Amino acid sequence: MGSTERISNVAKRVAKWHRAGHQMVVVPSAMSGETNRLLGLAKELAPSLMSEAYHRELDMLASTGEQASSALLAIALQAIGIESISYAGWQVAIKTNSAFTKARIESIEDQKVLSDLNQGRVVIITGFQGVDEHGNITTLGRGGSDTSAVAVAAALKAKECLIYTDVDGVYTTDPRVVPQAKRLATVSFEEMLEMASMGSKVLQIRSVEFAGKYQVPLRVLSSFTPWDIDLEEEARSGTLISFEEDEKMEQAVVSGIAFNRDEAKISVLGVPDKPGIAYQILGAVAQANIEVDMIIQNISKDGKTDFSFTVHRNDYAKTLEILKTKVIPDLGASEVVGDTQTCKVSIVGIGMRSHVGIASKMFQTLSQEGINIQMISTSEIKTSVVIDEKYMELAVRALHKTFDLDQVQA
Amino acid sequence: MGSTERISNVAKRVAKWHRAGHQMVVVPSAMSGETNRLLGLAKELAPSLMSEAYHRELDMLASTGEQASSALLAIALQAIGIESISYAGWQVAIKTNSAFTKARIESIEDQKVLSDLNQGRVVIITGFQGVDEHGNITTLGRGGSDTSAVAVAAALKAKECLIYTDVDGVYTTDPRVVPQAKRLATVSFEEMLEMASMGSKVLQIRSVEFAGKYQVPLRVLSSFTPWDIDLEEEARSGTLISFEEDEKMEQAVVSGIAFNRDEAKISVLGVPDKPGIAYQILGAVAQANIEVDMIIQNISKDGKTDFSFTVHRNDYAKTLEILKTKVIPDLGASEVVGDTQTCKVSIVGIGMRSHVGIASKMFQTLSQEGINIQMISTSEIKTSVVIDEKYMELAVRALHKTFDLDQVQA
Repeated sequence: MGSTERISNVAKRVAKWHRAGHQMVVVPSAMSGETNRLLGLAKELAPSLMSEAYHRELDMLASTGEQASSALLAIALQAIGIESISYAGWQVAIKTNSAFTKARIESIEDQKVLSDLNQGRVVIITGFQGVDEHGNITTLGRGGSDTSAVAVAAALKAKECLIYTDVDGVYTTDPRVVPQAKRLATVSFEEMLEMASMGSKVLQIRSVEFAGKYQVPLRVLSSFTPWDIDLEEEARSGTLISFEEDEKMEQAVVSGIAFNRDEAKISVLGVPDKPGIAYQILGAVAQANIEVDMIIQNISKDGKTDFSFTVHRNDYAKTLEILKTKVIPDLGASEVVGDTQTCKVSIVGIGMRSHVGIASKMFQTLSQEGINIQMISTSEIKTSVVIDEKYMELAVRALHKTFDLDQVQA
Repeated sequence: MGSTERISNVAKRVAKWHRAGHQMVVVPSAMSGETNRLLGLAKELAPSLMSEAYHRELDMLASTGEQASSALLAIALQAIGIESISYAGWQVAIKTNSAFTKARIESIEDQKVLSDLNQGRVVIITGFQGVDEHGNITTLGRGGSDTSAVAVAAALKAKECLIYTDVDGVYTTDPRVVPQAKRLATVSFEEMLEMASMGSKVLQIRSVEFAGKYQVPLRVLSSFTPWDIDLEEEARSGTLISFEEDEKMEQAVVSGIAFNRDEAKISVLGVPDKPGIAYQILGAVAQANIEVDMIIQNISKDGKTDFSFTVHRNDYAKTLEILKTKVIPDLGASEVVGDTQTCKVSIVGIGMRSHVGIASKMFQTLSQEGINIQMISTSEIKTSVVIDEKYMELAVRALHKTFDLDQVQA
């Protein structure tokens, strides 16, 4: 939400749904720029702090942005005659663990909210934040408002969770890279999960995970649509992330091409191949709260194996440091090597389950473009490759064409 | 607190005290302009709302300002190596009643804070706010940070509560009206209470009441003093509001001249003089949450009396309305008259208790200046008059001179 004008428009949109008979819970984000402004002040005061105490204060600070916009939205609704009440995360309560600045939701109490809804109120819940078992305010990390919304929808068993974003749906790939990219009317939860984790920035992955875990139908739609468009039209817009596999979905072999420029590749070479190796390497990394994405272990040769994984580029230096100081000395590995000039490109499609040869068609396409594949990882519904960063756009465009995504009808 | 530079200076000042061995609890105000900015946004969205639901949201909104500055101060302290933790009102908890936008503190829990202090931390407590029994965020109204600070000091049995303001102490009167006004090194609690309630804007009256109730020694000092001045010098600066009546205080008959331009006068004429009249008139006004200041009832004539009181000028129209619609019809009074072009001027001094003729000296001075007195009210240590607003400065200057306040030595 940007200005009071935008807040006022959000209120009008919510009022439209409310007046059509829907019970509404709204989870607003902070006013645009506010979170950055607040964190900028903290950075000015303490350019180099990293302690837990500091991260606790960052959450105290950053959580105020959403609290203010929630109160303002409640006020905007009241101003147009809709009864409305806002709750901070701890008031609901939205309970999280204590991982400051990237907490995870553990439970949501629904009594207050249900009672308000039954009294005809629109309930505004402050997104992005929660409270830990000690009563500390926590935040969920960037994009956390989406996760809050889905978690709240799950707790309340909502019919649908509408996520208003700055895009108008999920596309076959990023239209900035492939102008022919098409909007998908429906995408399966599994595909969305893979696309979100692959860097399609439409939704935060955790929000999709939550939606999947609790079977919350999720619709991604544009916040730029005028608030007064026909409600039925709005209800059909965007992309529905669905849990029912209909025939149409079965037909689409590959639904989208995802990519991620933020991956860095790390390989531990010459690791003795014995039980517990993966844990020994990744346990220390996980303890430092670094998320690991792809993990690949090659088959063993002469009792030695190579172990590779990818992390976010920002965590690359820290991960190398941990490996070199805490892991390698005990492990007897021969070397650690890495590269930050890499990217990951994935084809995602629920139809891949029942179609053979999709992966090899992907490799063929890349080969025809002269792109060398550095790592491969597959799941039931996706195939990912790590390639040199400079070939990313080329790879995405070629794959988009190969899998006929230019022809998709929304 | 204005900018990160000011926050950083506050941190350095706190660090100075902390390093000298003091256990410190700090109650910061919002960054300057922030509360006005937030309330301005609410006003833009809802220019005319007055409901309780609206006031509840205003508190959700306004409380974010202090929460942000508290977190920033904790961060600024951590940045210079001082362990520090901030708490929102509900986290402490500071419990209040449910009068949104002007709540009153009912209790403060001290366990968390004492535990942190004993671990060597500086504790930052978000001022201006609390939480009611239903878990709603409340705010204490303008200047509420002072009240929070004193209440916290009382709960923790602090040795002294330092209030850093934009003035460097309590003066014999407002120096903008009387350039010869002098700073008082000490003022008794009772005098301060009268001066605060009379409109000396140094401290919010509720903070002084709290200090009195719990015998918290209060020092008003300037936030513009450089943070690195000698600690002993800083500890002696400003004005100490004291509970011990020393000899020096006995000698000063009048300590200060207070005045208040915001008073409106209302008289109910021809009220039948029977028990319960005062309650009938003021009960309805109090129910509307309007604070009444001076109350005067003249002696009865022919079974009828006149009943006068003053309210804040902003409450004048509402008060008249209440009287005319809810009170007068049942009361059988003949008329309600009022005036907003009035002001109140008071002489305050603990020495008045043991000195006769002080009030008449005041009346004589006003008479010599040709100023007509409209109402008079007295207490043990003050005499107040309501006069035409246009004579206010003249009255204050003349009284300041009459009572030798130009000669006070700080």
